[in-house]
Amino acid sequence: MFLQFYYGCVGLVELDFYEREPPIPSEDYFGVSFFDLRAYVYDILRGVGVSSEDSRIVADVLVLADLFGISSHGVQRTWRYVEGVKRGNVNINPDIRVIRDFGATALIDGDNGFGQVVGVKAMRLAIEKAKRFGVSMVLVRNSNHFGIAVYYSLMAVFEGLIGVTATNSSRLVAYVNTVERFLGTNPIAIAIPKRNPPPILFDAATSIIPVGRIEIYSKKGKSVPSGWVMDGRGEIIHGDAKAILEMVERGDAALLPLGGLGEELGGHKGSGLSFIVDLISGVLSGALWSFHVGEIIGDRPANVGHFFSAINIEALMSLNEFFDRVERYIGEVKALRRHPKADRIWIPGEKAWLTMQTRLKTRIPLHRTVYNDLVRLGREVGVDWKLRKLSLI
Amino acid sequence: MFLQFYYGCVGLVELDFYEREPPIPSEDYFGVSFFDLRAYVYDILRGVGVSSEDSRIVADVLVLADLFGISSHGVQRTWRYVEGVKRGNVNINPDIRVIRDFGATALIDGDNGFGQVVGVKAMRLAIEKAKRFGVSMVLVRNSNHFGIAVYYSLMAVFEGLIGVTATNSSRLVAYVNTVERFLGTNPIAIAIPKRNPPPILFDAATSIIPVGRIEIYSKKGKSVPSGWVMDGRGEIIHGDAKAILEMVERGDAALLPLGGLGEELGGHKGSGLSFIVDLISGVLSGALWSFHVGEIIGDRPANVGHFFSAINIEALMSLNEFFDRVERYIGEVKALRRHPKADRIWIPGEKAWLTMQTRLKTRIPLHRTVYNDLVRLGREVGVDWKLRKLSLI
Repeated sequence: MFLQFYYGCVGLVELDFYEREPPIPSEDYFGVSFFDLRAYVYDILRGVGVSSEDSRIVADVLVLADLFGISSHGVQRTWRYVEGVKRGNVNINPDIRVIRDFGATALIDGDNGFGQVVGVKAMRLAIEKAKRFGVSMVLVRNSNHFGIAVYYSLMAVFEGLIGVTATNSSRLVAYVNTVERFLGTNPIAIAIPKRNPPPILFDAATSIIPVGRIEIYSKKGKSVPSGWVMDGRGEIIHGDAKAILEMVERGDAALLPLGGLGEELGGHKGSGLSFIVDLISGVLSGALWSFHVGEIIGDRPANVGHFFSAINIEALMSLNEFFDRVERYIGEVKALRRHPKADRIWIPGEKAWLTMQTRLKTRIPLHRTVYNDLVRLGREVGVDWKLRKLSLI
Repeated sequence: MFLQFYYGCVGLVELDFYEREPPIPSEDYFGVSFFDLRAYVYDILRGVGVSSEDSRIVADVLVLADLFGISSHGVQRTWRYVEGVKRGNVNINPDIRVIRDFGATALIDGDNGFGQVVGVKAMRLAIEKAKRFGVSMVLVRNSNHFGIAVYYSLMAVFEGLIGVTATNSSRLVAYVNTVERFLGTNPIAIAIPKRNPPPILFDAATSIIPVGRIEIYSKKGKSVPSGWVMDGRGEIIHGDAKAILEMVERGDAALLPLGGLGEELGGHKGSGLSFIVDLISGVLSGALWSFHVGEIIGDRPANVGHFFSAINIEALMSLNEFFDRVERYIGEVKALRRHPKADRIWIPGEKAWLTMQTRLKTRIPLHRTVYNDLVRLGREVGVDWKLRKLSLI
């Protein structure tokens, strides 16, 4: 499944041009076309020896994040991937093997391949097993950062199934009642097909925000609001994003779990969910967990663990009946009384889908530092064409 | 699996007497023994014609909630169950049937039986299927309120499996960017076995708090803190719990999802999770969903939908290796730097388990209104013995 398939999809007709992550101030951004950008990232990966098939997968996952308006997980990560290859943390010729296969479950050893390559293989197996058994679960060890989790869940949706993806990741988040980075942002992504696009796409870090949000705020010179980050003494901090990002990276601050500090507003729930994701995708898979999980640019293989599951709707109900029921459900949500401070009532996935449609029709805005870094990287690894700049509109 | 099995379990040795929900002020509480209380609820159910087997199940689930210190889901609900039987919303002779069976999945029609009776049957099937296929999913339609979700997940733990339970429920919670009650508190409960008790028990409403918390605050005359509830104009309210409870019941206020009001601290994540729980346990099961879901004391059958899943650890890893890894994980959590305002670093389930051990050894504290209501109910349905009061300590 590559992005061409989305291209013709009809989305929400009410909004013709929607930007979840508007390129403001516009002088800081360049526009690029989706096709150019994907080809450019593909060529960079080819330039460091990644196979054609694998380069396509990694480029596809990265560029989908930019299309969805999740630039923190988009092509700005390319240099890390290249660096991971150079350091030997990413094995570009992995022997990805199913090491356990029991009924509707399997365990895959990713042999330190790209998380995206391992993830696509694992979700394919989960889909196949769900078609046969109704539900499935595939766990993965010895993998790397795999980009946006919802990519894999979306693979299931294109087959008419529900997809569930989760992963652990390197330490950033404090467990409830503690003050250190211990858990990853350990996201959960669930995608559910609808009769017409957009599908339902729930993709959420189990922390209040992913660290990428602070990276973007830092790039934009924005101020971090109160409630996202805690310092080493357990006090909530806010303000200058660049300074806070450095504190988090040094380990002098930690992201807060969904539900925030302490138990009053549910910090035990967010950190409990993250802990469960880690126990299943990290502990049960045989991967590393919590603060042991490495980074792609670390000094050893990251050994990230993933979880993939698919649910065969037709095992329980005809697709047609399910789609009818989902349409009614969504109609009811949209008819609720809107909060006076809210712009709109959103179904999970709509913002990403509309942004994708807008960006496919027009351009993907890249922050100039991201554009410049990408082009520099391209030159270094021998990409011999120029990534064309488009008008931002 | 009845509660006798827990009785001999060794728990955390550090805390000999722990109360998650201390009976304060003590003059408002009576103590009762676990065995007496379970027998009393059993006899009440027998008194309204429920079969011996089913009365045992319902009493067991209710009393486990009281043992765990979750009194909102405990025997204080007995009168609702009896009322549900009297109104015909609960069918005490249900024909609980598997209406679809496909590989590792099944769909059960609960025929409006007690949620507990249907739930135990459904989780038994999920366990059986997980043993055979590695993972399983059983959905349920035409059921009722089933008490604490973690009861069913714990059934899987007693078989050495991981248990996952979720359910929809009647409307109490606002979807993000809206101001009305629409979603239920739609809890997710995941139980993971360990070498020694307590198992890991994660059981969380997808709202910040379950409504039962406000009921208890109301009983105790406590003040609701800011952040749990929103009024019909979308403003956060706090203060007198009795007044707020009445507003929620009338529909003039709604509980907030995990993550709170709006999107800044993740209200879209909590309400998104709740929405997903509803789409799978309500929509895909063929049950009712969101504000359509009835109550056991309503004017028609509730048609609640449930989700049950089990994961066979040994499909992926030997139990012994898994237990070793979990022990190391928990040791690492316990060794983290504690937040200066936190009493202790807790693993999900520890508070409930310690409270159970304390209450099994000593007594279950019942609020005097709960005790009095229960005894009145007992007399009404012909229970001919007195529920003995114990000293509170």
